Amino acid sequence: MLSQNASQDLICAVATPAGTGAISVIRLSGNGSLALVNSFFSKNLEEARSHTLHFGNFQTADGSIVDEVLVSVFHAGKSFTGEESVEISCHASPYIQAEIMRFLTASGARVAEPGEFTMRAFLNGKLDLSQAEAVADLIASQSRKSHEVALNQLRGGFSSELKDLREKLIHFASLVELELDFAEEDVEFADRTELKALVDEVLNYIEKLIRSFEVGNAIKNGIPVAFVGRPNAGKSTVLNALLNEERAIVSDIAGTTRDTIEEMLSVEGIAFRLIDTAGIREASDEIERMGIDRSKEKIRQAALVVYLYDSAVLTTDEVLEDVELYLQDKKCLLVGTKNDLPNEDREEVKIQVEAISERPVALLSMKDPVDVERLRKLLFDTTIGEKLDEHSTIVSNVRHVESLSKSADSLRKAKEGLETGITGDFIAMDIRQAMYQLGTITGDISTDDLLGNIFSKFCIGK
Amino acid sequence: MLSQNASQDLICAVATPAGTGAISVIRLSGNGSLALVNSFFSKNLEEARSHTLHFGNFQTADGSIVDEVLVSVFHAGKSFTGEESVEISCHASPYIQAEIMRFLTASGARVAEPGEFTMRAFLNGKLDLSQAEAVADLIASQSRKSHEVALNQLRGGFSSELKDLREKLIHFASLVELELDFAEEDVEFADRTELKALVDEVLNYIEKLIRSFEVGNAIKNGIPVAFVGRPNAGKSTVLNALLNEERAIVSDIAGTTRDTIEEMLSVEGIAFRLIDTAGIREASDEIERMGIDRSKEKIRQAALVVYLYDSAVLTTDEVLEDVELYLQDKKCLLVGTKNDLPNEDREEVKIQVEAISERPVALLSMKDPVDVERLRKLLFDTTIGEKLDEHSTIVSNVRHVESLSKSADSLRKAKEGLETGITGDFIAMDIRQAMYQLGTITGDISTDDLLGNIFSKFCIGK
Repeated sequence: MLSQNASQDLICAVATPAGTGAISVIRLSGNGSLALVNSFFSKNLEEARSHTLHFGNFQTADGSIVDEVLVSVFHAGKSFTGEESVEISCHASPYIQAEIMRFLTASGARVAEPGEFTMRAFLNGKLDLSQAEAVADLIASQSRKSHEVALNQLRGGFSSELKDLREKLIHFASLVELELDFAEEDVEFADRTELKALVDEVLNYIEKLIRSFEVGNAIKNGIPVAFVGRPNAGKSTVLNALLNEERAIVSDIAGTTRDTIEEMLSVEGIAFRLIDTAGIREASDEIERMGIDRSKEKIRQAALVVYLYDSAVLTTDEVLEDVELYLQDKKCLLVGTKNDLPNEDREEVKIQVEAISERPVALLSMKDPVDVERLRKLLFDTTIGEKLDEHSTIVSNVRHVESLSKSADSLRKAKEGLETGITGDFIAMDIRQAMYQLGTITGDISTDDLLGNIFSKFCIGK
Repeated sequence: MLSQNASQDLICAVATPAGTGAISVIRLSGNGSLALVNSFFSKNLEEARSHTLHFGNFQTADGSIVDEVLVSVFHAGKSFTGEESVEISCHASPYIQAEIMRFLTASGARVAEPGEFTMRAFLNGKLDLSQAEAVADLIASQSRKSHEVALNQLRGGFSSELKDLREKLIHFASLVELELDFAEEDVEFADRTELKALVDEVLNYIEKLIRSFEVGNAIKNGIPVAFVGRPNAGKSTVLNALLNEERAIVSDIAGTTRDTIEEMLSVEGIAFRLIDTAGIREASDEIERMGIDRSKEKIRQAALVVYLYDSAVLTTDEVLEDVELYLQDKKCLLVGTKNDLPNEDREEVKIQVEAISERPVALLSMKDPVDVERLRKLLFDTTIGEKLDEHSTIVSNVRHVESLSKSADSLRKAKEGLETGITGDFIAMDIRQAMYQLGTITGDISTDDLLGNIFSKFCIGK
């Protein structure tokens, strides 16, 4: 477990991704970083100004050279962590990295724990907790939108909104507590109607933030979309068309797609995780049966199920049978594929299925780029669509949404207290609890356990 | 193919290993690097001094932020390439890297070809060719010794020796050519005995460098050592003991090790590639037979074969039969394993095998750490041992050894000419050819083809 006291010592870590390449960066932070690196450097760094670069040799006491390196110097107060820091840019050879780390750790530095640099930045007041968490989200972001959300959080957008909310609650609490001070006199300083309006406002705002998590989670982790249908419904063709690549093997043999394949598709900056499943039908062999079990599990986990049927062949009864069997109450898209092949009953099937299932059916041909684009748009609109614009601030972190929920609970209690005319001290307790929960998000209130839990999920060197 | 003219434009590349991590470095080189980065940076870098670091946002013209980055500025003449260069240190997210590269390449930079930064360093006279090649070797080095050889080469150790050799040859050539100028007068200015001594000296030195390649190649690529023996000879146990880890599966069932497994072992800073092979015997099934074929191939490729036999069980005839069948004239070590198990004939078998095979036999038990250490030392002594100290300069590059060989050929011709009293102009031609070949090593003489061939083997960003 990480401890706040740990910030006194000297830590080091390889901060660049593992492997071979041109450049690798080894990062040090803590008092004495510069002196330590200086003892291994061919030039004197004692007088080096902050934010300067120095080319020379990383060498041992006996003068044997480990590598030609570039050293970056950051003085205390001017670095990412807030502490005296040094970055050593060496050749990206695993051997050289290991050697430099070996010399540093043998001379007083220790290997940093995951996230320890960012944790120090937090402990030294360079970032608040939600900003620190945004660093990890930023690194992990795979789509434009998730990158945007993480960056906004890193830049303190979310934190400043929380600060506003807390200030409003402090104002509220002070009014209530003022009342408490004059309790014997039975005077109500705080106008309870005004108080109620204030709680409502804050509560509404927090509830909106909580609702934004549905969108935030989708943005951060991608939206799982399962593709189901009978063998030969054209699932692989649809996936390939969407992804514009031949990733899944397309074949005319029924039951070809045995295992589930997951691919990322980006629509409007949102990542969709497309899940190809084995064809739904009575399996004839054991391996196929296992594939179908996996498909059912994937359907269960998906946020959206796209049901595909061959519109050149299938009858209304067959389609309705599938919908009945596999979709039940899942959010889904019904798509008739192979719209380019002749079938005079096609429109009739569509109308009947729509009438009975009460779900719209799209008839598409993946040979037509306009239809492929239409399917992409359908995926987006059915899942996230206008919800995306509803929220100016989007919460994407489970820990944050939990704290917001607890805060909302306390506010609801306070509101109830105001309505039932409960005494001020109970209300003040609820408000303090609500403030406390908001404070845990930015780290104004934190415990070692909380910090350890958050930063241990980071990568080493960050 | 890379061309020398390419060094005018602006190149960029991700220089750190691919993947996710804390920090990633994107490198730019060429005139206008700074202006280009400045157009995406939240601060003004126009007046930035060389070797300074600047924290700010990488952002687009409309102010939307891609990442918080640290920018390193290197002025022309003061960078690795010798050109104006900038390094952007961003968060190591594949998405962010791709975005920054996208903006840079859309604004005038192009993606660097492999090795192009180092090639520019060469073209701008910051490194000679053998030093540039050493950069790639340095990155690829996996053992202390290979790292040492690459670093010595990078630091110009080899180049300066070549320079000495060329100077001696220039001196020689000038003497011979002086003689040519006065050819009609039939005077021999150059003392042919002195000339012969000089050619001998240079030739001896070059031949020694060529011989050092045996060691250099072993250092650079590791020494392949095949372990062979009958089933249950204890191969996997021996490998595990050497590697101190349970990498190969040990089992008492004969024929367990079906496929070949390769592991790296470092002894005295030299890498040994230990190759476990399937047991040699008549195979009973197809898969086993394939394994044995692979074993024979591995024996053929190995620099050393370690033949293991169970010293508690095998007779002299059985051991000699194996040696006859599989080792023939390969360099090998004979090792009787399981020395801890009782067998009163053990010493007798050893003495007989040694007498008949004319090879020493070591009796070892992998349960004894002293024996494990002894085996490590045997590997080292049998393969590279004292050869390592024989050479102060070690050639590890195939291209260099080829040029050295061609140079030696020309010198031998010159020597022959001196002995047979051939006229000076033929000798001068040979000497010029020898000098030319030495020049190709450091790049004093180079062609586009040669450069393209060398640098295309580098990783991107170097």
